Amino acid sequence: MSSKQRKPWINWLLFVATIVVVFILGLLAASVTERKHEAATAYKPVVKLSEWEPRNEVWGENYPREHQSYRQMSDTTFSSKYNGNAMIDMLEVDPRLVVLWAGYGFSKDYNQGRGHVYAVTDLTNSLRSGGPTNEKDGPMPATCWTCKSPDVPRMMAKDGIAEFYTGKWARLGAEIYNPIGCGDCHDPETMNLRITRPALVEAFERNGKKIQDASHQEMRSLVCAQCHVEYYFDKKRDGKSAYLTFPWDKGMSVDSMEAYYDEIDFTDWTHKLSKAPMLKAQHPGYEVYLTGIHAQRNVSCADCHMPYRTEGGQKFSDHKVQSPLNNVANSCQVCHREETAELISNVYDRQTRLIEIRDKLEELLVRSHVEAKLAWDKGATEEQMKSILTHIRHAQWRWDYVAASHGGSFHSPVEIGRVTGTGIEKAQEARIELARLLAELGHNEAVEYPDITTKAKAQAFIGMDVEKLKSDKQKFLKNLVPKWNEEAKKRQESWSVIKVETKE
Amino acid sequence: MSSKQRKPWINWLLFVATIVVVFILGLLAASVTERKHEAATAYKPVVKLSEWEPRNEVWGENYPREHQSYRQMSDTTFSSKYNGNAMIDMLEVDPRLVVLWAGYGFSKDYNQGRGHVYAVTDLTNSLRSGGPTNEKDGPMPATCWTCKSPDVPRMMAKDGIAEFYTGKWARLGAEIYNPIGCGDCHDPETMNLRITRPALVEAFERNGKKIQDASHQEMRSLVCAQCHVEYYFDKKRDGKSAYLTFPWDKGMSVDSMEAYYDEIDFTDWTHKLSKAPMLKAQHPGYEVYLTGIHAQRNVSCADCHMPYRTEGGQKFSDHKVQSPLNNVANSCQVCHREETAELISNVYDRQTRLIEIRDKLEELLVRSHVEAKLAWDKGATEEQMKSILTHIRHAQWRWDYVAASHGGSFHSPVEIGRVTGTGIEKAQEARIELARLLAELGHNEAVEYPDITTKAKAQAFIGMDVEKLKSDKQKFLKNLVPKWNEEAKKRQESWSVIKVETKE
Repeated sequence: MSSKQRKPWINWLLFVATIVVVFILGLLAASVTERKHEAATAYKPVVKLSEWEPRNEVWGENYPREHQSYRQMSDTTFSSKYNGNAMIDMLEVDPRLVVLWAGYGFSKDYNQGRGHVYAVTDLTNSLRSGGPTNEKDGPMPATCWTCKSPDVPRMMAKDGIAEFYTGKWARLGAEIYNPIGCGDCHDPETMNLRITRPALVEAFERNGKKIQDASHQEMRSLVCAQCHVEYYFDKKRDGKSAYLTFPWDKGMSVDSMEAYYDEIDFTDWTHKLSKAPMLKAQHPGYEVYLTGIHAQRNVSCADCHMPYRTEGGQKFSDHKVQSPLNNVANSCQVCHREETAELISNVYDRQTRLIEIRDKLEELLVRSHVEAKLAWDKGATEEQMKSILTHIRHAQWRWDYVAASHGGSFHSPVEIGRVTGTGIEKAQEARIELARLLAELGHNEAVEYPDITTKAKAQAFIGMDVEKLKSDKQKFLKNLVPKWNEEAKKRQESWSVIKVETKE
Repeated sequence: MSSKQRKPWINWLLFVATIVVVFILGLLAASVTERKHEAATAYKPVVKLSEWEPRNEVWGENYPREHQSYRQMSDTTFSSKYNGNAMIDMLEVDPRLVVLWAGYGFSKDYNQGRGHVYAVTDLTNSLRSGGPTNEKDGPMPATCWTCKSPDVPRMMAKDGIAEFYTGKWARLGAEIYNPIGCGDCHDPETMNLRITRPALVEAFERNGKKIQDASHQEMRSLVCAQCHVEYYFDKKRDGKSAYLTFPWDKGMSVDSMEAYYDEIDFTDWTHKLSKAPMLKAQHPGYEVYLTGIHAQRNVSCADCHMPYRTEGGQKFSDHKVQSPLNNVANSCQVCHREETAELISNVYDRQTRLIEIRDKLEELLVRSHVEAKLAWDKGATEEQMKSILTHIRHAQWRWDYVAASHGGSFHSPVEIGRVTGTGIEKAQEARIELARLLAELGHNEAVEYPDITTKAKAQAFIGMDVEKLKSDKQKFLKNLVPKWNEEAKKRQESWSVIKVETKE
């Protein structure tokens, strides 16, 4: 009897439990469907993108989440805590840079970059681009636009690559208008990552590799490597263009690139004080990254600087490109199970140690330039100076490789230590030979270190007329730039945006 | 009816299933009991250990697994693949060391250590300990025994600490017999880790810390830090002893210890060529480790060099102290989920980069000693040489800190890069001043680099009579050492071993 009475009670319990479970499953299914619907609608194209569409906001109509995160870069306070994209006058912070780059554009003006969305504005405003009065005027070649805008591949497709690299920077002032954005890295049809800058493709081909063989994960670094690399302007190629070229044919290490430059006898500029045949390291971030542990573990640039996020059921890559230190949870902590504060302190620990020796190298380079100038002043001959100037060239190349690689002390701290160490050795080797030469020329004592405690003092020390540069720049900004902008706006307004027909 | 027929069938099924499960549980319980029994018997003491029992084999009767793994260190082929404990003549591999240590014992003889079990033998055989003919003879103080044997704490307990550190090395030849082993790190009653060497405890106390406050995990490094550290012999303390002291009072970084030595005007020896007041870095492995990421993540020395193993249900620490590269599965791979080959290549990658700059620094130091000697020969004054010799002292201290820290390129590669970089800077600074001084003294050209391509050539270059050293050593090994061994054996045979009564 008792078993017969229990049975209906158990059945009722099972019945109610089943109802509850099924109801919850129903809720879950509804949520999944909703998210799938969201996901599907989110990636429904709204407008048709032409192959070289340079307007980021037009791409943004199809990809609002990516575009919104991209736009967040315009607020430069967001990452200033970790020196992300804030505008910092590096020459004021460290006036020795003025002496190191004497005779080269960077001694005029060098700010920490404010990020992709300011690429065109900041170059236009910089004293480095000078105050051109017409399209054939100014200190910089057209090639200097190459990494600044998705208008670049548009113009290359229109005019040809070598033609793009020809003439003055001002020649393309009205054409290069949209800052670095969507079209630089994406195929408008498939949204696959694509390489739009020829130098990377050409470097691969010269070394027997095909960029098409790169995996998606490799492409998540290679699109960055279009620009965040070491390069030079080859002016011997056709006698006309300043052809942007990567010096990778002997390898991508600091030593291999140095050997490459030495072999082709390439010089970025002649140093104003020491007359050394200098190399300017551009920003060999990709090359340094390749020597580090994250690259060895197959972690891409985007994994840390553009980590995946989820919003409304939609996984997407965060296009607010920034220091991972502003975003440890989505970058570092995907792999590393340590607290945010500890991870950040680990990064700073590496940087602090390495900045100490980089700083020392910088001082030694200033000394070597100043001592070399004294040797010239005392009547040294080219022959006497040759080996000294080669040491200075190599030492500063190594310093600049370290300093300009941005984040190198984190990306590959051991390599940065090695390169800085060899730089110190070479700078001091120059100074040993200079000590002997100066003794021979009648100056056998320590050479006074200049007073370069501020940017103004340092610029005065190298004999730079900054007021003239500023006044030229102002005229340029007042007279030429508004015309460029007007012309660009007009052109873009004339382009129709084709809406995609929806079939809902 | 149908439900009534199914019921017995279900019951039988449940019955059989229960029998199967209970049987398996029984097997499991038997296995657990067996292992517990094994574990219990394994740690049942067989002999009673006295407080300073120095005989490792007596400890081994109570702890056979630890002792067996300890004994495996006597086979020096086991870890030769990764340069673990093989006997390598470092002066032959790198004859520049002879010049760097000219005037100091290490220029006579320096082999890579063969590990703890050879500690007494190798020091006795080394040319460094010379050929004493009686207990008051020979080049080394008694203090040099401090890290070699568990007979050391026994003698310190018997005679007193300062007394131990007094007199010549040969004075204790018959007392120091058993190689580094159990009693150096363990309490014989509880088997807890214990510090037996006073210098570490004293350094803690001087800095307001208590060694008793150290956690078990900290002790798994601190027992190693009794010896694998930087230290010096304080001869001013009581005017009698060479009191072993850690130079940690200003901090444990290379800079802090340098400042400490400078302040007390300490010199290990005067360099034979340059007459520089030199510092010999001993083996600051612990200090370097503390600056690295593994220490920051609370990984102890023992975690990698003596990882836990299981045998017969018994978890124990592997006492075959060795390079983790011989034992990646039990060391690295406990945390790192990469393949063995990749992890090993990561270690070598760091080492290769850092050895390049360490090697360069070594060459520069040889040059600086040779150039300084030339300056003396040309009539330089003490006053003229003062700053130069200080640069050489600091540069070689930094080189030695890097080289002698054994494994530093892995334990803390960024710090090693920094220290090497500063060393290069200082060595070259010495050479710049030397160039000026030599010019003043009439030698204004590069100074020839000596032919020191072999150990023999290098030792001849510094004027060492190696044949005399070898012949003295042979006499010592033939005449004195057999007597020491006989006396030690007799003493140990006179010690009774008390068996523990078992109550089984």
